[in-house]
Amino acid sequence: MDGAKVLIFGAGNFGSCLADHLADSSHNVFLWSRDGNAVRRINETHHSDVFTDHTFPDTVQAVGPGFPSQELIRNVDVLLFAIPTEGIRETLTSLKPLLDEKHLPLLIFVNKGIEIATNALTLEIIADTCGPAIANVAAFISGPSFAKEIIKRQPTSVSVVSLSIEHAQRASDLFHQPWFRCYTGEDPIGVELAGALKNVYAIASGMADGLGFENNTRASLITRGLAEMTRIGTTYGASPLTFLSLAGVGDLFLTCSSSTSRNYTVGHRLGKGEKLDHIIKTLGSVAEGVTTAKALHTLISRLGVNAPIATGIYEVLYEDADVAEKAKWLMSLPPVRELDLPESTGKPAQQLLKKLELTRAA
Amino acid sequence: MDGAKVLIFGAGNFGSCLADHLADSSHNVFLWSRDGNAVRRINETHHSDVFTDHTFPDTVQAVGPGFPSQELIRNVDVLLFAIPTEGIRETLTSLKPLLDEKHLPLLIFVNKGIEIATNALTLEIIADTCGPAIANVAAFISGPSFAKEIIKRQPTSVSVVSLSIEHAQRASDLFHQPWFRCYTGEDPIGVELAGALKNVYAIASGMADGLGFENNTRASLITRGLAEMTRIGTTYGASPLTFLSLAGVGDLFLTCSSSTSRNYTVGHRLGKGEKLDHIIKTLGSVAEGVTTAKALHTLISRLGVNAPIATGIYEVLYEDADVAEKAKWLMSLPPVRELDLPESTGKPAQQLLKKLELTRAA
Repeated sequence: MDGAKVLIFGAGNFGSCLADHLADSSHNVFLWSRDGNAVRRINETHHSDVFTDHTFPDTVQAVGPGFPSQELIRNVDVLLFAIPTEGIRETLTSLKPLLDEKHLPLLIFVNKGIEIATNALTLEIIADTCGPAIANVAAFISGPSFAKEIIKRQPTSVSVVSLSIEHAQRASDLFHQPWFRCYTGEDPIGVELAGALKNVYAIASGMADGLGFENNTRASLITRGLAEMTRIGTTYGASPLTFLSLAGVGDLFLTCSSSTSRNYTVGHRLGKGEKLDHIIKTLGSVAEGVTTAKALHTLISRLGVNAPIATGIYEVLYEDADVAEKAKWLMSLPPVRELDLPESTGKPAQQLLKKLELTRAA
Repeated sequence: MDGAKVLIFGAGNFGSCLADHLADSSHNVFLWSRDGNAVRRINETHHSDVFTDHTFPDTVQAVGPGFPSQELIRNVDVLLFAIPTEGIRETLTSLKPLLDEKHLPLLIFVNKGIEIATNALTLEIIADTCGPAIANVAAFISGPSFAKEIIKRQPTSVSVVSLSIEHAQRASDLFHQPWFRCYTGEDPIGVELAGALKNVYAIASGMADGLGFENNTRASLITRGLAEMTRIGTTYGASPLTFLSLAGVGDLFLTCSSSTSRNYTVGHRLGKGEKLDHIIKTLGSVAEGVTTAKALHTLISRLGVNAPIATGIYEVLYEDADVAEKAKWLMSLPPVRELDLPESTGKPAQQLLKKLELTRAA
C-alpha cells in the first residue's frame, strides 16, 4: 500500500512517532490534536513538543483543534487511533455519524488497556459505538515499541491482528518496513488482554527489584507472570499461543525490564516501602497497571482462575498488604505442575463474539 | 523428602551452589571433585575456590579425586550430575557397573547442551550408557538460575521434568524450598532443547546490542528467537508449551539480558566488529552457543524448518558473513503470519522415544 491517506487521532508520543514513520513510508498523514498551539507549531515548523529535536516530514499535516471534518474523514483510507483507551468511546461516538458505511476506511487501534467503568476491551467499545460490522474488521497493533526508539528508526517488530485476517494484512501492508516489521494474526482478544495485563506484571517486576531481589527472581517472576496471563487469557477465550507473540511475551519482557516505565516505577517504590497514595501524588498521574490491577481482580474472580501474582499485587495496592509479606506468601505457595492451562471455558470471549454477531467453536 | 543422601558429580559453580542448597535443606551431601586439593580444602575449611567468601555447611562432604566408590554409590538416594554435557557419557560409562539395578537411586541432571560429536541430547546419552529403563526415570532441572544468586538464597524458580512424572515429583520434593521453587513437567526433550538452543539466541541478542540496537530490537529478537526455538522444538517432537516454561522463556530471558554471560559477550564483540578467532582466543575457551550453533545448523536442515535467526548466526560464526549485512538481511525478510507452528512431525523425538522403548501418540 503506497501513498495512502491516514488520519491519526492523537498527537502524543505514540501517535507522533507513527505519523513520522508512515509519512516516511510515502503515505500522507493528517495528525489530529485537540491543542491548537500544537497544530500550528507542527504545520509552521515541522516540530512538536514531543521529540523536540525531531523534524517531521512535510507530508505530516496537523489538523484540529476541532474534531476532524466529515470531508476529511471520508477522504482518507485509514483511521489510526493513538489515544488512551479512556478516550476511545467518546471519539468513536463522535466519529460514527461521519463515516460513509459503504466506503469504510481501515480502522487501526494502538491503545492498550481496559476501559475502567465497564471493564470492556476496545473491541467491545468499537461494537458498542460503531456496531459489530466495524468491530469485525478493526485492526490492532501491539508489541515492544518505545516511541522514542521508533522515531530513531530502531528496528522494531509488532503484532498486527484483526478478526479479519484480510484487514490485519492491509494494516501490515501499510506499516511494514525493514525497520518496522509486522507479524499478522487473528486474535485481537488475546492481544488486547496481553497489552493490558502486562502492566500489572510490570508492577510486580518493579516490586521485586525494589525489595532487593536479583536476576533469577526477575526472570522467574516474568515467566510465572506470563503463565498466569496465559491462564487468564485462555480462560477468557483467547488463544494461548497469542501470549508467545510480540504483543504478549515481547511487550511483557520490554515493560518488565524497563526501569523507566511508569508501572515498573510504581512497583519499585512500593518495594522500597513507599505508600501508594504518596507515589501517585508525586508521579503526577496514575500508572495504567494500577487501575488494570483492579479490573483484573474482578475478572479473576469472575473467571475463577488461579492468579496468585495478580492477587498479591491487588492486595498490596488496594488492601494495604505489606509488600515483603506478600512476596513471602508467593514463595511459600505449594509446588505445582508448571503448565496447567485450563480447559478453555472462553465465556467472556464467546459473549463478546456474540455481540459481534460472530460465533466460533469453543 | 528429608535427610536424603545425595552424591553430586562436579564441584564447579553450579554443583557447589546446589550442594550448599541441599545441605541447607537438611540433606547429606557428598560432593565429588577430581581435584584432590579442592576435596581437601572443602573438608578441612568448609570453603572452596568457587564462592570464596562462602562457608559450606558441615553436612557437605567432599569426595575424590578418584571416582566415587561402589559402596558410596550404593549408599546414596540421589545422584546429581553437575558436569558439562561433554563429560556425561564418560561419567555414566564409569558409573553403570557400580549401580545396583534393583535399588536405583534417583538420577538428576542439571547440565545443558548437545553432545558435540553425536548431536545427542543427555536423555539419549543416558539411554546409550545406562539403558532405556534408567533414561525413562531420569530427572532434569533447568531454568533461570545464576549460581552466584542461588548461593545467596535469592528466590529462584526452576522446571523439574522427567518422562516419569513420579520421578520429577521426587526431584521436586528433594529441592523445593520457598527460595528454590520447583515446577514439575514431563517434557525432558523440550527442556533439553530449550536449554541448549537459548545460548545461540543469546549470541544474537549480544550481536544486536553490539551493533547499537536498543530495547525494541532486543525484545523483538528475544520474542522471534523464542518463536524460532518453539518451531524447531515442535518439529523435533517437543511440546510447544515447554517453551513457555522456566526452562524455556525464563532461561532465554535471563541469558539474553545478562551482559555477563559468555554467549552474550561473544555476540556483543562480533557486533562490534571483532573476528571470532580473536574473541575465542582472548575469551580463553569456546562459549557453548558457538558449538551449539553448528549442531543446530545440522538439525535445522535435517528438520527442514525455517529458522532465519539461527541461520544468520551460523553464517556469521562459520562462513565469515558480515554481522551488519546479516542483520539487514533478517530485517528485509518478507512479512509473515506471526505464529506458524508446524504440524508436529516429531521424528527425532519419536526415534529417541523408540530407543527408550517408549512410544507416544504423534
